[in-house]
Amino acid sequence: MESEGSTTEAVALRWTGDTLELLDQRLLPDEETWIRCSNADEVADAIREMVVRGAPAIGIAAAWGVVLAAQADPSDAGLDRAAETLAAARPTAVNLAWALARMRRVAGDAGGDRLARLGREAAAIQAEDLAMNLAMAEHGAALIPEDSVVFTHCNTGALATAGHGTALGVIRTAHAAGRVRLVVATETRPWLQGARLTAWELARDRIPVRLITEGAAASEMRRLSPSWLIVGADRITALGDVANKIGTYTLALVARAQGARVMVVAPSSTLDMDTAEGADIPIEERDPAEVWRAAARGVLPQGLEIGNPAFDVTPRALIDAIVTERGVARAPYGTSLRGMMTEGAEEGR
Amino acid sequence: MESEGSTTEAVALRWTGDTLELLDQRLLPDEETWIRCSNADEVADAIREMVVRGAPAIGIAAAWGVVLAAQADPSDAGLDRAAETLAAARPTAVNLAWALARMRRVAGDAGGDRLARLGREAAAIQAEDLAMNLAMAEHGAALIPEDSVVFTHCNTGALATAGHGTALGVIRTAHAAGRVRLVVATETRPWLQGARLTAWELARDRIPVRLITEGAAASEMRRLSPSWLIVGADRITALGDVANKIGTYTLALVARAQGARVMVVAPSSTLDMDTAEGADIPIEERDPAEVWRAAARGVLPQGLEIGNPAFDVTPRALIDAIVTERGVARAPYGTSLRGMMTEGAEEGR
Repeated sequence: MESEGSTTEAVALRWTGDTLELLDQRLLPDEETWIRCSNADEVADAIREMVVRGAPAIGIAAAWGVVLAAQADPSDAGLDRAAETLAAARPTAVNLAWALARMRRVAGDAGGDRLARLGREAAAIQAEDLAMNLAMAEHGAALIPEDSVVFTHCNTGALATAGHGTALGVIRTAHAAGRVRLVVATETRPWLQGARLTAWELARDRIPVRLITEGAAASEMRRLSPSWLIVGADRITALGDVANKIGTYTLALVARAQGARVMVVAPSSTLDMDTAEGADIPIEERDPAEVWRAAARGVLPQGLEIGNPAFDVTPRALIDAIVTERGVARAPYGTSLRGMMTEGAEEGR
Repeated sequence: MESEGSTTEAVALRWTGDTLELLDQRLLPDEETWIRCSNADEVADAIREMVVRGAPAIGIAAAWGVVLAAQADPSDAGLDRAAETLAAARPTAVNLAWALARMRRVAGDAGGDRLARLGREAAAIQAEDLAMNLAMAEHGAALIPEDSVVFTHCNTGALATAGHGTALGVIRTAHAAGRVRLVVATETRPWLQGARLTAWELARDRIPVRLITEGAAASEMRRLSPSWLIVGADRITALGDVANKIGTYTLALVARAQGARVMVVAPSSTLDMDTAEGADIPIEERDPAEVWRAAARGVLPQGLEIGNPAFDVTPRALIDAIVTERGVARAPYGTSLRGMMTEGAEEGR
């Protein structure tokens, strides 16, 4: 299966038949360096150290990590140990746990060669992710008017997935259809995924991209009149509140004030139907050094506290559409998302 | 004249009697290094290269630059040349032109020693700036309720002025009065004045400060329920639109949505009664490298455009109070600001 434009599109990971190669995203855009993982521990290290990032890409990498573990030791004990190590690498990433659960289920199946079964399942997880992205891209792109400027945040592209991307996949497909004049990418402090990854991906694909700081969002939206702010999601609650990269909530408020609509794009596995509201989502607080190191080489001044929440929760009232591979949900999301999940059909279009 | 808390408060510049010493703000907070300027060209270089920044501090530095020029050559030609060089260093800073105009007027006065007159005028500009800041601080602090969390942006403190600061001066005085529980400072991309200067100033003064990225503003305001967002201004139009550091407009929209009020604090010399609306203010677009260098060492990818507006314009509809040394103006600003400027008295409180 090939994504549209796959000849130039960036690739986050590749399976060589007996090793997993990961593009070191920490070094982008300065260097394109590939890291070779020969066992599950090396994959776990790469996930922990953010060589590979983006919830779908992490899930796929972990699945291949289980295959590497099975190559060395296909026993139950060997696989259990590998799955635990991989799961602990980034405990908050939903897709990581989801992919590992799939791999363990397949490991337990009867018949045939266990290693071969696991290899097929990892390949399926990767292929299905790309297929879901292409489906989401079609659903989302249909919502974008002609001659649009669109804003996006963080990186939700090929580098975060098996290819094409989630929010960035929608933008890619809409651009290919001639409907996107300009993509404005926010740099996404403190990790700068927008500047380092999204700008790099889009420039590489020759999609017109303008990079700005988050602070410039209000004046740039006022000047450019975007049709949509299009973002990914790390978790979507049953009522439609959306946890995503820090900054999303700020940008959604600005979009609403400036007349732009807000689209959230994520595979249906991101829906957490057991959590009703955004206030119930635990928000990971990360190392203050991630913020501080941009300002100074030295240690934190005494008495200075730094807030570094990795995510925020955008209230459903600010969201105009939630796009999954199953279709487009609209408010009220309590109804539309439940319908999407239970009927397995396009809903709320 | 001493500012409150002057024993610990940061100082941007000091006149030694025959040289001007400037704290190199490019190196803060890692290093406190002073640069000695012995002539007007060295002062102009320091302003251009952002050794000293903040409109009031630049104006004061330029005034001392004229004194240095008069030491070497007190002729009209010598002073004209120095004033031109200094004015060109940062052509958009209002206070720079204003301070130079004052110095040239005094140079033209009859009687006494020209060098002595110029020295007295530079000292007066510096002293008046501090006095205005202390007056603004009283007016603004009176608006802040007990047990407040306040947000601020960029650096408007002692480092940007002759002392105490404008918006940060209000916060200092309110904190000294026991009414500020926590100051949240946004890091202020791309120059990081909030992280490097404001956080450093406040931690040094033992004022509780929490540093966040601009993107985190919405979730942090929701969590902390600040009473006010308090910012400075580079230009205020006759109708009350406010040009200030990029990010101010974004934060004002977020503050409005999250129930915080917006206070602008600046000396009355910031009022531009000849410009009616914010749309008429030219916005300086700066070097894309200032944004890009945080993301990569390499050159810009081909096809990547970077927006780096230095300022934005916050519409008057988002502003709850404009504080100058003359008092507090409230909407409608067309009336209240005109009254403030013509009556020279407190207006609109």
